[in-house]
Amino acid sequence: MAAIQEFEIVKSENSQKVCAHTGFTLWFTGLSGAGKSTISEAIHQEFLKRGIKHEILDGDVVRTNLSKGLGFSKEDRDTNIRRIGFVCHLLTRNGVAAVSAAISPYRSVREDNRRLIGNFVEVFVDAPLSVCEQRDPKGLYKKARAGEIKDFTGIDDPYEPPLNPEVICRTDQETPQESAEKIVDKLRELRFIEW
Amino acid sequence: MAAIQEFEIVKSENSQKVCAHTGFTLWFTGLSGAGKSTISEAIHQEFLKRGIKHEILDGDVVRTNLSKGLGFSKEDRDTNIRRIGFVCHLLTRNGVAAVSAAISPYRSVREDNRRLIGNFVEVFVDAPLSVCEQRDPKGLYKKARAGEIKDFTGIDDPYEPPLNPEVICRTDQETPQESAEKIVDKLRELRFIEW
Repeated sequence: MAAIQEFEIVKSENSQKVCAHTGFTLWFTGLSGAGKSTISEAIHQEFLKRGIKHEILDGDVVRTNLSKGLGFSKEDRDTNIRRIGFVCHLLTRNGVAAVSAAISPYRSVREDNRRLIGNFVEVFVDAPLSVCEQRDPKGLYKKARAGEIKDFTGIDDPYEPPLNPEVICRTDQETPQESAEKIVDKLRELRFIEW
Repeated sequence: MAAIQEFEIVKSENSQKVCAHTGFTLWFTGLSGAGKSTISEAIHQEFLKRGIKHEILDGDVVRTNLSKGLGFSKEDRDTNIRRIGFVCHLLTRNGVAAVSAAISPYRSVREDNRRLIGNFVEVFVDAPLSVCEQRDPKGLYKKARAGEIKDFTGIDDPYEPPLNPEVICRTDQETPQESAEKIVDKLRELRFIEW
């Protein structure tokens, strides 16, 4: 994975100083409400600043455009996450920074995606369930506790935390900007981005 | 669509003379057996020769990786084609040449994809039904005629030919290489590729 040698030099009219980069996938995983979308928005700004070509595949975009009709059974979740992995794979091998921000609760499918994609950076967006449940930005925990939603990750469906993620963001202890900076530091260290 | 100004200069170790290009989608449409996969293989060689970054999404790749579980009803076909369109859109706006080689029988969804993607080159892979049926490379027409497959395009499901395709390949009258050259000429004329 001689990342630096494969850097692309991209002409840009908007920025005089674009950041050389190779293709990679930034794979967020974590409970609903842990902060995946918030951090990916901060990352979007960091990438924009550097002229890094990227695509953010967050849960809602994916459910609309790739996975309409899939439910939340283990099989359907796996299909959904593999499908996101396939798209990230296509983007990554064409020099794009793909960002996945879906819960992706099961370890084995994340590992399959890691093997498929190669340049794979797993970010564990970690906050205690009690904190996520208190935030409850979409009111989903409330519905899950009331039994109105079944198979909800963390309540009546398992979440399997990564064993060796490249980055851990403790969103109950750090700001989204601090999390984004940790991620950028790791990408630089792995030589996926220049600065 | 000032294509040329957005060309990317990509460093390559394998080729001294890569072809500058912008992102676009080459959208093949035509009956089963018309020659979509054969021409896309010829295009793959043309793009390789020029160092043009590309991805080929043929019907089988897509059914496995993006659309497992979808059937052949009008609704499922539309979902399948919109999904391919979404992936082509992501690739195109990141400077990749996306090639779709699915039947895509319905005009309105192809037109929706054209609007979504922008840099869209529709290639009508045209051969009379009788010729496609004689070729029958996968034995599907035989099964459809025997009633073993339902909703088969051209037999008991409609095929809506494009009204204004950028390229028409009459595969009963020209070789795959001739078809590929017509397509490359059109891409050059549209200034999506340099040579």
